Parts: sequence; C-alpha cells; structure tokens
Amino acid sequence: MNGHQRVQDDEGSAARLLALSDGVFAIAMTLLALDITLPDGLDPAGFRQALGDVMPNVWAYGLSFVVIAAFWRGHHQIFRYAREVDGTVIRIGLLCLGLIALMPFPTTLLAEYGDLPQSVAVYSGAVAAVGAAQLALTVVMWKRPWLGSTPLPDPVARNDVADLASTVLVFAVAVPLAFVSPTGAKLWWAVLIPVKSMTGRRGKRLRAAAQQLGAQ
Amino acid sequence: MNGHQRVQDDEGSAARLLALSDGVFAIAMTLLALDITLPDGLDPAGFRQALGDVMPNVWAYGLSFVVIAAFWRGHHQIFRYAREVDGTVIRIGLLCLGLIALMPFPTTLLAEYGDLPQSVAVYSGAVAAVGAAQLALTVVMWKRPWLGSTPLPDPVARNDVADLASTVLVFAVAVPLAFVSPTGAKLWWAVLIPVKSMTGRRGKRLRAAAQQLGAQ
Amino acid sequence: MNGHQRVQDDEGSAARLLALSDGVFAIAMTLLALDITLPDGLDPAGFRQALGDVMPNVWAYGLSFVVIAAFWRGHHQIFRYAREVDGTVIRIGLLCLGLIALMPFPTTLLAEYGDLPQSVAVYSGAVAAVGAAQLALTVVMWKRPWLGSTPLPDPVARNDVADLASTVLVFAVAVPLAFVSPTGAKLWWAVLIPVKSMTGRRGKRLRAAAQQLGAQ
Amino acid sequence: MNGHQRVQDDEGSAARLLALSDGVFAIAMTLLALDITLPDGLDPAGFRQALGDVMPNVWAYGLSFVVIAAFWRGHHQIFRYAREVDGTVIRIGLLCLGLIALMPFPTTLLAEYGDLPQSVAVYSGAVAAVGAAQLALTVVMWKRPWLGSTPLPDPVARNDVADLASTVLVFAVAVPLAFVSPTGAKLWWAVLIPVKSMTGRRGKRLRAAAQQLGAQ
Repeated sequence: MNGHQRVQDDEGSAARLLALSDGVFAIAMTLLALDITLPDGLDPAGFRQALGDVMPNVWAYGLSFVVIAAFWRGHHQIFRYAREVDGTVIRIGLLCLGLIALMPFPTTLLAEYGDLPQSVAVYSGAVAAVGAAQLALTVVMWKRPWLGSTPLPDPVARNDVADLASTVLVFAVAVPLAFVSPTGAKLWWAVLIPVKSMTGRRGKRLRAAAQQLGAQ
Repeated sequence: MNGHQRVQDDEGSAARLLALSDGVFAIAMTLLALDITLPDGLDPAGFRQALGDVMPNVWAYGLSFVVIAAFWRGHHQIFRYAREVDGTVIRIGLLCLGLIALMPFPTTLLAEYGDLPQSVAVYSGAVAAVGAAQLALTVVMWKRPWLGSTPLPDPVARNDVADLASTVLVFAVAVPLAFVSPTGAKLWWAVLIPVKSMTGRRGKRLRAAAQQLGAQ
Repeated sequence: MNGHQRVQDDEGSAARLLALSDGVFAIAMTLLALDITLPDGLDPAGFRQALGDVMPNVWAYGLSFVVIAAFWRGHHQIFRYAREVDGTVIRIGLLCLGLIALMPFPTTLLAEYGDLPQSVAVYSGAVAAVGAAQLALTVVMWKRPWLGSTPLPDPVARNDVADLASTVLVFAVAVPLAFVSPTGAKLWWAVLIPVKSMTGRRGKRLRAAAQQLGAQ
Repeated sequence: MNGHQRVQDDEGSAARLLALSDGVFAIAMTLLALDITLPDGLDPAGFRQALGDVMPNVWAYGLSFVVIAAFWRGHHQIFRYAREVDGTVIRIGLLCLGLIALMPFPTTLLAEYGDLPQSVAVYSGAVAAVGAAQLALTVVMWKRPWLGSTPLPDPVARNDVADLASTVLVFAVAVPLAFVSPTGAKLWWAVLIPVKSMTGRRGKRLRAAAQQLGAQ
C-alpha cells in the first residue's frame, strides 16, 4: 500500500524544496527590517523625533522575526527525516512559503497602524493562515512515513499538531477580538507564551524518549 | 557519440546552478509581496480606504506566486535526475532566471493598471517568455540524457513539453487579445486550468508507470 | 553525560540552519547597497552634485559589508565541524540572524546622519549586539563538542572568544563615547584594526598547530 | 611545501562560501529588476508614456543581468574542483561579492542618466572592479591546487585569466573614454563580444582536451 502510493505520487528529492524554503524564510526575515527607515535631510531635532517614531517598527520587526523564526524551526522539525516529497507536500509547502512571504505587509500595518482594529485583525489572520498551512504540512508528512528515512514517532507528531493548532486557534480568535479591542487582542496573543513553553518542553521530552527507543 | 558530446561541453556539476535558481525563485517570490504596501500617516478612514485599495495587489501577488511556483515545480522536475550541466543548459537556465526575476514588474502593472490593455499584454508576454525559456530547457535536458543519472522517459518528457507549450500558447495568444479586451484576455488565461489539470494528472500517471518499469 | 545531553536536546542536522544563515548574510550584505541611490530626473549639474552626495552611502556600505563579512567568516569558523544543532544553538543562531538582518538600518543612519551622536551610538550598539550574540554562539558550540565531528581545540576557541569579546568591548564603549564626540567614537573603532590583526594571526597559528596535532 | 601551506591557512570547506556567493549573485540579479517600476495613479495616456520611459531600465537590467550571469559562470568554473578554502580565497571571494552587490547602483545610473559621462564611467569602473577581483580569485585558486580535488589545467587557467584580463582592460579603458564620449564608450564595450566569443570557444576546447587527458 505504502509502496503503491510512493510510486504514484513521488516528485523527487526534498533537497530543493528545502533550499527554496530556506531562501524564502531568509528573505522574508530580512525584508521585515526594510521598513525600519528614516527620511533623509532632517535637522537634528527632527532626526531625534524620527528615531523615536521608528521604535514601533523595531518592535514589530522583533515580533515578526520571532514568529517567522518559530515557523522556520517547526519547518526544520517537520522535514527533519524527509528524503523525498510528493505533489501534495510540494503544493502545501509552496502555500506555506506564499504566506510567509506576505508577512512583511501585516508587520508594517502593525508598526504603523497598530492601534487600529483592522491592522491587528490582518496580522492575526496572517499568522493563523501560516499556522494552518504548516499544520496541514505536519499532518501530511506524518501520514506519509515513506517519504522519510525514519517515521516521525506518533507522540512527537501529535505534540507538534497540538502546538500548531494552539497557534492557529489563538490567532484566529484574535481576528474578531481585534474589532472589540485591538489592545485586548494583542494581550490575548500572550496566551501562547505559556502554551508554547509547555508544548516545547513536552516535545523535547518526547523526542528524547523516541531517540532512546530508536537507539536501543 | 554521447561520450564525445559529454566531454566537449561539460561545465561541471548541476548543484550550483540549482542553488542559484532556487535563490532567484525564492527572491522573486518574496519581492512580489513588496508591492503590497500602505502609505504612512493616514487617518482611520483613509486607512480603511487604502486597505481596500491594496486588495488588487494581494490578488496579483497570489496569481504571480502561483505562476512562479508552478514554474519552480517544473524546474524541479526538469533537473530531477540532473548531475551535470553544459554550456547550453547554463545559458538557457540563466535566461529563465533573468525572466523570472522580471516577474515582479508585470505583477505590479497588473495590480495597479489591470484594466489597461498594455498591462495585460505585458503580463501575458512575460509569462509566455518564461514558459518558452523553460520549454527550451526541458527539451535541452531531455536530449542530453548523459547529464543525468537516469534518462527522463520519453512519454514523461513529451507530456512536460505539451504542458509548457500550452502555457506559452495561451499566454502568447493573450497578448494581442488584451488589446481587444483586457478582461477577455484575463478570462482566456483560465483555459489553462483544465489543460494543466489534465497534463498534471497524465504526468503523474506516466511518472508512476516509468518508475514501475524502472523498479522491475 | 555528553550522550545524555545529546539525546535530550538534539534538533537534527546543522545543514538547514547554515543554509538559512548564509541566506540572511547574503541578503543583508546585498540590501546594504540598496541605499546607494539617486533621485530621477536631475539635470547634469544636479546629477554631479547628487553623485557626490551619495559617497557617504558608499563608504557606509563598504564599512558594513566588511563588518558583516567578518561576522560571516566567524560564523563559518564556529560551525566548521558542526554536524548537528540543539535547541539552544538554534535559538542563539536565530538571534544572530535577527541582528544581522537589522544592520542595513544603522548603516543608513551612519550614511545619512553620521555626524549626529545618536547615529554613531546606534551603529556601535548594533555591532556590539551582533558580536555578543556571536560570542554566545561560539561559547555554546565550544561547550557542546558532541554536536560536531571534531571538537574545537580549546586554544582556538579561546582565541575566537577573545576576538569577539574585543569587538563587543570596543563597540560597546563607543556607544557612550558617541555622545561625547561622534568623530571620536568612529576613530575609536579603529582600535580594532591592530587587535583583529593580532587575534587573526594568532588564530591562524593555533589552527595550524591543532591540525598538525590532529594529523599526527 | 604544499602540505605546509595547506595546514597553515586552511579555513574549512568551500561549500558555505559557495552558498553565500550563490545567494549574493541571486539577490543582485533579482534586485536589478526592482528599478523597473511605474508610478501609481497615472491616467491611460500617462501610463503609456511611463511604460515607454521604463524601457531604458529594461535594457540596463538586461545588460547587467548578462554581466552578472557571466561573472557567475566564471565563478562556477573557478570553484569547479574546489573542496576547501583558505583565508586569502575567503577574503578575495568576499571582495568579489561586495562588488557584485553594488552592481544595481551603476545599473540604475546607466538606465536613468545613460547619456552623462559620469554614469558610463561609474558603470565601466564597477564592471572593471568586479573583473579585477574575479581575476585575482582565478589566479589564487590556480596557484593553490591543494584546495581542490583536481588541479585546474594550466592552459585552461591561462585562458580564464586572459578572458578576465580582457574584461578588466576593456572596461578600464572605457572609464576615461566615457568623458570623451559616453556613446563611444558604450560602443567600445562591444569589443568584448568577439573577444569573449573567442576565449569562450578556446576554453571549451581546452577543457575538453584536459578532460580527455584526465580520462586516459
């Protein structure tokens, strides 16, 4: 059964999809910072003022860098044992990249218009969309163990799914919440800090357990 | 005969051409989104208006991302078994990249001036040109089996050629059509959806058959 | 003990972190040059004037290129023998990249407002921050020899730490110094030229000695 | 003697320098096209006018793409058999990249102010500088055969040196020539077309001969 599916839908090695992905992640990360800029030809007083005004852009950069870096780290885990990819993996992988490449826009919105509900809603929606695409990618890779050298252990995969599902849930709820209170929605994002810390520690423990089993 | 040609025109391993290509594809994909931007310092009403005005840019981004991603997927297939490249492959491969790197410009035209015939004509011409370059690359790789570890099976290569030829044909016809009716030309593009779906399914079936033959 | 830690915190191969890093370094290096630009539609006299005005941007580009290139070279050395990465290495590695991606902004400040104390302070602080992150990365990799194929010899690692610590120290001191005299702070940077030349030559000697030991 | 030098100055594998280089080449190639842009909100007549005005940018993009692509192809040949790099190779390699990353600026000058002597002189000087750096890289790699798996055959290396020296010479002569006649200097560039065609064909013949010798 596995062999059948492998033959039917194989599209070759994973290496180039990962090269393309690392490229898009790297560029999206770096372009985020392009928004941190000052007009030319200011006098010293105007310069000090402009330097203060650019601080929200620096914060938004920091936040989006952390978000994209976290998705990259998840991507790195998903494809850890991958050797080959099929059409479905390529399609969902490219969808992920298309959404990651969009991230500089909501980041600018958040930096420039962070007190308006639409900005917070667009940002939350964008992160939820990336999370949903990456969740789909995780499930697809988990259910296709023949694409990798080692199957992803079920408890590890289930923890990864829970981790991404919590991201999607929190940011999806933030979309309508932003229209009630933009600040409330931003505070609500912080719910993810303890959740992520917990799934992160659980993931580390489960991976260690799986490796010890594999090493036996 | 093959050995002779191999010696005469060999320019070394394919790895760096693929690294460069993945870089250009990744950057072109990500730069497409740079056009989705809002002016600073709008009041809430102006912001909502500007957020609406940016939607055509989001659509144009989505369309061009799908186009470039499809070309990347084709590129991935062309070089699937490639180990080495010769001067002709490098030259046509670089031409492909030069055209891919141009894509952000027609995408902006389509987003900002999508109702003008020239924009639709330039966009159609650009996609047709990328398609033609990739078609040449497919034929060149197919006719140089000594560059790869495994020859591309003839039925698979013929299906890939038909797929790219249909892209070139549809977008080339759209160039004059745009001057008759820009909207008509954009609707005409949709002809590719059933065509691509058919060649895609055929390609999958042919690859599976070729692999089963290879596995025997 | 080592084996225990290896199992507990392993996050897979170093290859993708290095691919992402090379991408961010390459993009940051190239985006630095985006700031070297001229307005359109100048008359010949205005053009000559503008061409002269762009020279500080060229100098700032050159300086930041050298800074980023030096950090890249250090990064190349840190990960020379690395095969695997763990969560801590990934986190600090990503922090490095986030700071490298910021470099185009202080570079523009220095080019446009290089005579104002804040610009020199921000630039110095940015370089000190990258240096501190890379210093942490060096120490972390040095203390985790199980992540590499060959342990980094202690004298080599200690020299690398001294080299990065001198960068951090000089640029950190330049932050307050910039408020006393921006020009003084920039001259103070030059202290690093003899220091780097010395640690560079020492590093080369120590690496050679370590290799000769390894080859015996 | 060779072994001594190898030990003394070895800085590890060439793979990451090549990854960084491919990244910078890919980004420089793609950023060239960023200059091809139209203002927003034009009426149809203004749009047609602007579309015509953008043509010099398209030509300049095409020219610079060909120039950078040719340097990339040369870079690919230089490092064809490289396995390791030393400090000198890294330093000159990074200098090359720093000059390649600058190319979008002279390209814009040529597109916007192509009839002014300074633009043609800056463009010519920039290409001559990249050529000189790549010439140095070629000589350095040729004289360090212990860095590669196979030594570059002397006739091939000498032809590569002649090819790059002709580039440097033609573009260096174009710098003063631009102040006599900008158009004359641009026509003078065309001298390289027959020269490159000759060195290209000679290089192909010499490589084939070297491979046949190697294969015996």
